[in-house]
Amino acid sequence: MKVGICGLGTVGSGTFNLISKNNSEIERRLGSKVHIAQVGCRREHPDCNLSNVDVSYDIFDVVRNPDIDIVIEVIGGLDVARSLVLEAIRNGKHVVTANKALIAEYGQEIMDAAAEKGVQIKFEAAIAGGIPIVKTITEGLAANRLEWIVGIINGTSNYILSKMSDVGCDLSFIDVLKDAQKLGYAEADPTFDVEGVDAAHKLTILASIAFGIPFSFDAVYTEGISQINASDIGYARELGYVIKHLGIARVQDDNVEIRVHPCLVAADHMLAQVKGVMNAVMVGGDASGSTMYYGAGAGSSPTASAVVSDVLDIMRASEGKTAGNLGFDNGRLVPKKIVSIEKVVGSAYLRLIVSDQPGVMARISTILSQHEISIESLIQKNTRDDYADVVIVTNAVFEESLDLAIKKLSSMEDVRGDVTRIRVAEFF
Amino acid sequence: MKVGICGLGTVGSGTFNLISKNNSEIERRLGSKVHIAQVGCRREHPDCNLSNVDVSYDIFDVVRNPDIDIVIEVIGGLDVARSLVLEAIRNGKHVVTANKALIAEYGQEIMDAAAEKGVQIKFEAAIAGGIPIVKTITEGLAANRLEWIVGIINGTSNYILSKMSDVGCDLSFIDVLKDAQKLGYAEADPTFDVEGVDAAHKLTILASIAFGIPFSFDAVYTEGISQINASDIGYARELGYVIKHLGIARVQDDNVEIRVHPCLVAADHMLAQVKGVMNAVMVGGDASGSTMYYGAGAGSSPTASAVVSDVLDIMRASEGKTAGNLGFDNGRLVPKKIVSIEKVVGSAYLRLIVSDQPGVMARISTILSQHEISIESLIQKNTRDDYADVVIVTNAVFEESLDLAIKKLSSMEDVRGDVTRIRVAEFF
Repeated sequence: MKVGICGLGTVGSGTFNLISKNNSEIERRLGSKVHIAQVGCRREHPDCNLSNVDVSYDIFDVVRNPDIDIVIEVIGGLDVARSLVLEAIRNGKHVVTANKALIAEYGQEIMDAAAEKGVQIKFEAAIAGGIPIVKTITEGLAANRLEWIVGIINGTSNYILSKMSDVGCDLSFIDVLKDAQKLGYAEADPTFDVEGVDAAHKLTILASIAFGIPFSFDAVYTEGISQINASDIGYARELGYVIKHLGIARVQDDNVEIRVHPCLVAADHMLAQVKGVMNAVMVGGDASGSTMYYGAGAGSSPTASAVVSDVLDIMRASEGKTAGNLGFDNGRLVPKKIVSIEKVVGSAYLRLIVSDQPGVMARISTILSQHEISIESLIQKNTRDDYADVVIVTNAVFEESLDLAIKKLSSMEDVRGDVTRIRVAEFF
Repeated sequence: MKVGICGLGTVGSGTFNLISKNNSEIERRLGSKVHIAQVGCRREHPDCNLSNVDVSYDIFDVVRNPDIDIVIEVIGGLDVARSLVLEAIRNGKHVVTANKALIAEYGQEIMDAAAEKGVQIKFEAAIAGGIPIVKTITEGLAANRLEWIVGIINGTSNYILSKMSDVGCDLSFIDVLKDAQKLGYAEADPTFDVEGVDAAHKLTILASIAFGIPFSFDAVYTEGISQINASDIGYARELGYVIKHLGIARVQDDNVEIRVHPCLVAADHMLAQVKGVMNAVMVGGDASGSTMYYGAGAGSSPTASAVVSDVLDIMRASEGKTAGNLGFDNGRLVPKKIVSIEKVVGSAYLRLIVSDQPGVMARISTILSQHEISIESLIQKNTRDDYADVVIVTNAVFEESLDLAIKKLSSMEDVRGDVTRIRVAEFF
């Protein structure tokens, strides 16, 4: 199948480059590579190597190109995107889009047109960036009657509220917004983000796919975060809460609530832990219970992850394939060398019970340094009369070095019993 | 398509009942209901209404029944399950299983047999209960080169470590284990859970589907939590960490680490927030970045959610259908009444700036009680010379009652400026 990309902005160029970069891994999964046949874009793109691709300055060329089976719409905006997608559908092409406004506002028209032509419309990238929340709701949790969706689905608002909630921060909404604009986390005109419109678009789509109801963007109650100030954040903290901007959709019998607004969330709730520009969607299912999906809600690469995964889904389905039993095409599992634990590199927590003698710490440090292990943190505490606990966090070393050091430490006269060793989380 | 269930224990009965309960919602999603044609089980099951189902006391009858297209294996254990699944495959049936040990230890044999017969083997329920992590890895993140997986994938271990980490708890591993056994969170023989074998089974599967490598259970480094004691948890806290039992799989060039062991995790890391019997899997993709999937890792209903979602996937694929553009069969969207915000029920945070006069609080309380709003929490603080902040968290009321009360409060002579109102998270 051949793919055409309309638009080569942040998401479009991320998509183009991701396909180029991962095409061999994609081939391992699907049995075939993704073939980008045409790109429609208006400007030069030095960040994309377009030498082997047909480039048109008219994006409508892409949806009219008879060679193309899948159109990726990443131009954004409403009216042109709508015409483009509808024409792609009329021409029998599947469509992948990252355009939440388009789906929330013209979703019904687009879905009707797609149903008539029997093509697929996929929009994983429209909500929560790289988190595959659309697939989770429409497939992963398909056995459930879904009861509610609650999400932090606007990174800009979450960044601003998180920043305002930092202990010691006493900045106003406007000050933090300016900071977010400088960092590229907020647009020059931030209205759509900070007044909740973007979140309302996303929530409209989530409610539709979760509950099987028509799109109802106009009926979503929408309130942004511009009224939140530092004293509210302080009082909320005093009461055991943090303030988050949430999208909430909830079905009860024949009624549904769909609303976007700031909300006090208990400080120990999982959603309260979602900070900065990160997104998270919590889903209540009658069988699954509450599950939560967390990750980067925007950005070139995470959004491209969703766009390209949608393309792969369409390719699999069109070729009558599933993901395969293991997610890789039959016979394409490749063994890798499994690193033995001795060869793993990492830092460790060590606890020793030592007799409280002069020079003990010196002897311990000497053994560690002999194995090129350095001490990152140290606690020494008297426990009983003649004994002390020594707790050490080491730097990252080969486990085998640590094995040797622990063996020597254990055999020290000053050390009582075994040395406790617990690994320390490193790279994730 | 017709479904047969082998085993009617916790997961089997949950599966049977979930299909019965949600078959009309399932029909809305798929266009057809799930038809359970036969159940194989050895005991009476008063919790399942088997009156319309063919029940056999020999589970092998199910895999030999020519009417059955999909076999659900939920008997657990290794040898009988292996024979059962292999015979089902030989007879051309798709298989859904919740059996992590079976897939981790005999996965290759089963996948080879399935490839030969062209049937699907699905095992979403084998890892992390109701969290659709297998689908996420094999489909949702398919565009990525996956780099690592880190998960809290054994609820028993996480329950014990969470409990031991509660501030003020000074119980030993053995004491908390006993408590977990009483609550049904640990088996009578807890070895598989607390010594890491169960997590190693799950991690084996995760590594295989994430990196496209053969199953390698025997090579997984496996360490449990029985050596962790209260003093380690205390020192870890002092150093800014919590102790979690993690499964870690990580690929670097042609090498892969696959290991299960306790680990110090920074206290503010998302995985550190995963408490009790909850599970979470974090996935590092080269495009998606870090994403995390959180939910109940076990239990009858969450596991059934995964089993039945797998069945629906097989049904869709076998009928050449996708999930549809919105996850529901064409034309099956049903409008629901969208509740206007005034009719939403919830509690709220109110902040008023009041002049510091005698009787102000009495006048505020009177207005609230006139609208049947009660005060759950209250903070009053002098801010400037003549003014005080009054912060109130109300009980759950109709928003329209609160609208009226706020209108009256705003017009009070003692109240300066607008009343701030922020909703409080309620049901999720």
